[in-house]
Amino acid sequence: MKLVRTIPALRREISRYRRTGRPISFVPTMGVLHAGHIELTQRARRIVGRRGIVVVSIFVNPTQFNQKSDFKKYPHTLAADCAKCRAAGVDIVFAPSARSMYPENFSTWVNEESLSLTLCGASRPGHFRGVCTIVLKLFNQVQPDVAIFGQKDAQQALVIRRVVRDLDIPVKIIVAPTVRERDGLAMSSRNARLSPQERIHALAINEALSQVRAAFRRNIRNASKLKKIVRSHLAKIHGMKVDYVELMDTAMLRSVTKASRGNLLAMAVWVGGTRLIDNIKL
Amino acid sequence: MKLVRTIPALRREISRYRRTGRPISFVPTMGVLHAGHIELTQRARRIVGRRGIVVVSIFVNPTQFNQKSDFKKYPHTLAADCAKCRAAGVDIVFAPSARSMYPENFSTWVNEESLSLTLCGASRPGHFRGVCTIVLKLFNQVQPDVAIFGQKDAQQALVIRRVVRDLDIPVKIIVAPTVRERDGLAMSSRNARLSPQERIHALAINEALSQVRAAFRRNIRNASKLKKIVRSHLAKIHGMKVDYVELMDTAMLRSVTKASRGNLLAMAVWVGGTRLIDNIKL
Repeated sequence: MKLVRTIPALRREISRYRRTGRPISFVPTMGVLHAGHIELTQRARRIVGRRGIVVVSIFVNPTQFNQKSDFKKYPHTLAADCAKCRAAGVDIVFAPSARSMYPENFSTWVNEESLSLTLCGASRPGHFRGVCTIVLKLFNQVQPDVAIFGQKDAQQALVIRRVVRDLDIPVKIIVAPTVRERDGLAMSSRNARLSPQERIHALAINEALSQVRAAFRRNIRNASKLKKIVRSHLAKIHGMKVDYVELMDTAMLRSVTKASRGNLLAMAVWVGGTRLIDNIKL
Repeated sequence: MKLVRTIPALRREISRYRRTGRPISFVPTMGVLHAGHIELTQRARRIVGRRGIVVVSIFVNPTQFNQKSDFKKYPHTLAADCAKCRAAGVDIVFAPSARSMYPENFSTWVNEESLSLTLCGASRPGHFRGVCTIVLKLFNQVQPDVAIFGQKDAQQALVIRRVVRDLDIPVKIIVAPTVRERDGLAMSSRNARLSPQERIHALAINEALSQVRAAFRRNIRNASKLKKIVRSHLAKIHGMKVDYVELMDTAMLRSVTKASRGNLLAMAVWVGGTRLIDNIKL
């Protein structure tokens, strides 16, 4: 495994592989890698095969944080991340500096102006502008044939798919299922911030999602009722605050009043000072 | 020469050339090709050599017109354009439909938020958002090694260079000198709209630029004086209305008060109902 720290060095590596026609698969991350990320890299490997190249980027993108304090709190664990990537058979870890990603007088932004307006886009103004811009930059740097995102960030995956379609980016987007801890909590780099007590409280998120799934199976289709199941369950727990609970179609991310198969139930919840997101597809 | 009308057909052509490592040079146009465009294609050929591929796109991009009437008036001359491209040794003319370039629910835009705010960006709100978005789309479709733009659209060239730098697009941008008619008028597809009388009046634009150049050689450095030379000269002519005359540095497109070598003197002028632009680098 090679750790690459600059854009020119990455370009040299990539052009070598492209010349020989080796397929490139790409997993963009902000580091603090957990088993969910590792599953993405394993899927990347399966797609391109042994001859292909698996690239993982590790970059805590300042422009997608709407709160400076959140950005500053975000952990950095490059050495441990590299060890995990090496063990997982990743070929290249690309970890550029913020300075090189956002040079002086940086002034170009990619805005998705439909799917990114709701859910996390409404709660975190500017978040998706930062996400879309950095992902497009990374795609242009890595020039992957395939890029893999996690279903935990469901809205992000939908927004990226739209950007790729609209801008004709020559990359295939794969969305992999959410990986959960044994007790059901969706894996997230932010989980490390939870106190032991909060860690227990956070289980209510997945419990609420399971209750919704069960209710949907019992043929409850009223969206208000299904959302209320989540709110009621979380209301029981001290220190949890719902940011949003929404039931939406996945084509346009518009609220539905009557649930149907394939709809997305998504939520964001504050557990103490940590904001967690999770979702299920019905 | 091959005329390609759809994005999938273009992708098939491009992937064939990329597999064999043949370099691709690209000249994006809105058609109504004139000798200025043809010079761009000849430069494209010189850059990639006989083994390389020269691609010309012809697409009247609706989203870069801030006035619907201007878009509707814009001429279409595909058959004549193709004949000129064939004669010039172009390999591929790519002329997609507006429907395929902007599919249903299109919602992603590329915004350059610094250099595009002045000059034509101030006069034509949304213009550069349309330009940046379509150029990025075309780059992703054509995947050129080199793209060639004309200096007549000086601001466009600077904005595109900035977008390419900021988004790390793997393409080299070349800016070719403005090509002029024998009498000095900068070539433009819009010239065809001028009445015989307006065509004569339009000569004042290049005359004014020549006077500025001469004054700069006589060591006149006061920006107001230099701009006044343009305004005074054009004021003499009936039916001409200055949109803007500006003297700017080319790094940041900010107005200067004292002219220095390399500065851009740029103007936009209404000649009757036709808006023409021109510029010189001092």
